[in-house]
Amino acid sequence: MFPEIDAGAFSGPPAATAIFTTVLTEGPVSRVALARRLGLSSAAVTKAARPLIDLGYLHELAATERSGPGAGRPASPLAVRAEREFFLGVKITADEVIGVVCDLRAQVQASARRPLDDPDVDAVLTEVGRLTDDLFGAFPGDRTRVHRLGLALSGDIDRSTGLVRYSPFLHWRDVPLGRLAAQRTGLTVTVENDVKALTAAEHWFGEGVGAESFALVTVGTGIGCGLVVNGRLVSGSHGVAGEIGHLTVDATGPDCHCGGRGCVESIAGTDAIVAQARHRTGRPDLTIAEAVGLARAGHEEVRRVFTRAGGAIGCAIAAVANLVGPTRIVVSGEGLAAYDLFDSHIRTSFERQAFGAAARCPLSIRPLPFEEWARGAAAVSIQSLVVP
Amino acid sequence: MFPEIDAGAFSGPPAATAIFTTVLTEGPVSRVALARRLGLSSAAVTKAARPLIDLGYLHELAATERSGPGAGRPASPLAVRAEREFFLGVKITADEVIGVVCDLRAQVQASARRPLDDPDVDAVLTEVGRLTDDLFGAFPGDRTRVHRLGLALSGDIDRSTGLVRYSPFLHWRDVPLGRLAAQRTGLTVTVENDVKALTAAEHWFGEGVGAESFALVTVGTGIGCGLVVNGRLVSGSHGVAGEIGHLTVDATGPDCHCGGRGCVESIAGTDAIVAQARHRTGRPDLTIAEAVGLARAGHEEVRRVFTRAGGAIGCAIAAVANLVGPTRIVVSGEGLAAYDLFDSHIRTSFERQAFGAAARCPLSIRPLPFEEWARGAAAVSIQSLVVP
Ligand SMILES: [Zn+2]
Ligand SMILES: [Zn+2]
Repeated sequence: MFPEIDAGAFSGPPAATAIFTTVLTEGPVSRVALARRLGLSSAAVTKAARPLIDLGYLHELAATERSGPGAGRPASPLAVRAEREFFLGVKITADEVIGVVCDLRAQVQASARRPLDDPDVDAVLTEVGRLTDDLFGAFPGDRTRVHRLGLALSGDIDRSTGLVRYSPFLHWRDVPLGRLAAQRTGLTVTVENDVKALTAAEHWFGEGVGAESFALVTVGTGIGCGLVVNGRLVSGSHGVAGEIGHLTVDATGPDCHCGGRGCVESIAGTDAIVAQARHRTGRPDLTIAEAVGLARAGHEEVRRVFTRAGGAIGCAIAAVANLVGPTRIVVSGEGLAAYDLFDSHIRTSFERQAFGAAARCPLSIRPLPFEEWARGAAAVSIQSLVVP
Repeated sequence: MFPEIDAGAFSGPPAATAIFTTVLTEGPVSRVALARRLGLSSAAVTKAARPLIDLGYLHELAATERSGPGAGRPASPLAVRAEREFFLGVKITADEVIGVVCDLRAQVQASARRPLDDPDVDAVLTEVGRLTDDLFGAFPGDRTRVHRLGLALSGDIDRSTGLVRYSPFLHWRDVPLGRLAAQRTGLTVTVENDVKALTAAEHWFGEGVGAESFALVTVGTGIGCGLVVNGRLVSGSHGVAGEIGHLTVDATGPDCHCGGRGCVESIAGTDAIVAQARHRTGRPDLTIAEAVGLARAGHEEVRRVFTRAGGAIGCAIAAVANLVGPTRIVVSGEGLAAYDLFDSHIRTSFERQAFGAAARCPLSIRPLPFEEWARGAAAVSIQSLVVP
């Protein structure tokens, strides 16, 4: 919980954390509703909220009149002061760093990008440092209210220590990125896997708010999935979870770089699509943009590559629905720039393969700009303030 | 919580439930350890435990001496009185009802079986009634301490209302089994899907105790999966979860009765194995027992059917590991009577398809007698006492 608050003040269940999380993610809530929802007495809510109000994180809205028979005292809902603190979020890709400044409710206030020429740790840290300077420059608000930076990148990340265990595209192993970035920027840094960060943003501030379970599937070079089940992010006992890209959907399909066979990613990842399109057209230099262009222009063989990819993604999403039954599934990612080529095939395959009532799970299929990934990193930084 | 206890005594979080669950599933625990674990004050533990002791569900063990420097007062751990209450558990299959009597810690005290000739609701209720009489007769303990009956069967079950929404093998739709069985037996009845019941037993009293996440995969006529994630059973927002049997593992595989294609069950379910073995041998009357016999005798074509089935199961288990990363996975079920034909193929395929560290997830592969299913039903009944 907030460093400024004496932790000793909160014995037992972290009431202040629960109160702040509820108000932050679900908007103004009255003390009475908080007490009922969290199973606390009114006195406990009042006591736990007091330091949050004193520190300026929460404030009391003007009492609203309640109408109708049986209405009690007018309620004075508690609300978050979004401008109390601001957060930087940075997504690191193979060739670019993308950053945003967000308020406490993860609303973007400013953004910036810098190219990345060198995957060396020190070079990346230098660019992250420059990007934070750019963000401070572009941010119109009060800089002294920025204390935290969230970093997100794909790979195997230990959020609790800020360690990048393995990043395939940067070729990093066991890089203590959190500690190094904190030294470089002077900020309190969190590091998280990019798909998990995006899932955190959707869970706290997006389509997943209030959902007991929720899945976010990202489609691009890799195919990943963030899962919220029983109200919390699934992190995996052995450090692996949400690896939807390596579900087998075709036992006789292509070999995958993971050592498996017929994985979703070996059929529907960007590299796989390009490889198949090159094979079908006999053009060894074809790019993904050209493949998309050919498919849109009606090239039958190339269209079939996207059809098969959409089918594989649909099977994988159905697997998520059949296994954990999330409230809803969001499908997104840079791969969905070619959304029009995938959408109907994803849905057809999902509907065929979802078991019974699992087919009722709503799918949101939408492209995703890189700034959203950076916002995910900021959301994780916000979480690190609220739930240490 | 316990009907005898005035619910008004527990305002706020259900401390008594948390205390009882912890002591029940993890064995004797001191008040100090309970307070620390559950984030309660010592006074709150003492207050909440009092009625549980008065009612005879918990008792205090003799104080144990603590040794070593810094040892405080001797601890008097709280323990469950397993013989305080007993529970009936009954598994209903297409041709048999199997029952057990368990104590509060799900230890089997007696068991019985009856054949089932008729899937009609009334006929099944009659046999369940007779089976409970048989169980009372076989039970050496105090009958007046039996108040609850758990029923488990495959299909789509609403545990909260005891409604069987759909049971394919009994051809039931919307049967209020809980209410009907309560009328017939005079007991408090819970009804649960059999795989979920078995998962509950493993989670509270078996290999899953204390696990934040855990998966139980059952192999037989159907292929199912019970999942515990973030400490709780996954029930699925749309009523579907754990449908591992309908994951696509072979996009060009056989059509499945669910409308999908290349589902695990269409390759590795008992019916699928029999159908393939008949096709390979040209013997249209071949039974599963005969197919197992041929495979064990070295019939290459039939062996290949089991190899393929084991491979499909391994892919499905890897999908569970890749998506939710359980602490461990137990693979069981009547299909594993032919365990020797499956085991190595399940493992090989799992290891190939598990992504990175997900392959570290331990697999327990073991056959499962029907009495274990009945014990699962009893475990759900125990849960209904503890967590209403
Ligand atoms: Zn793979
Ligand atoms: Zn199926």
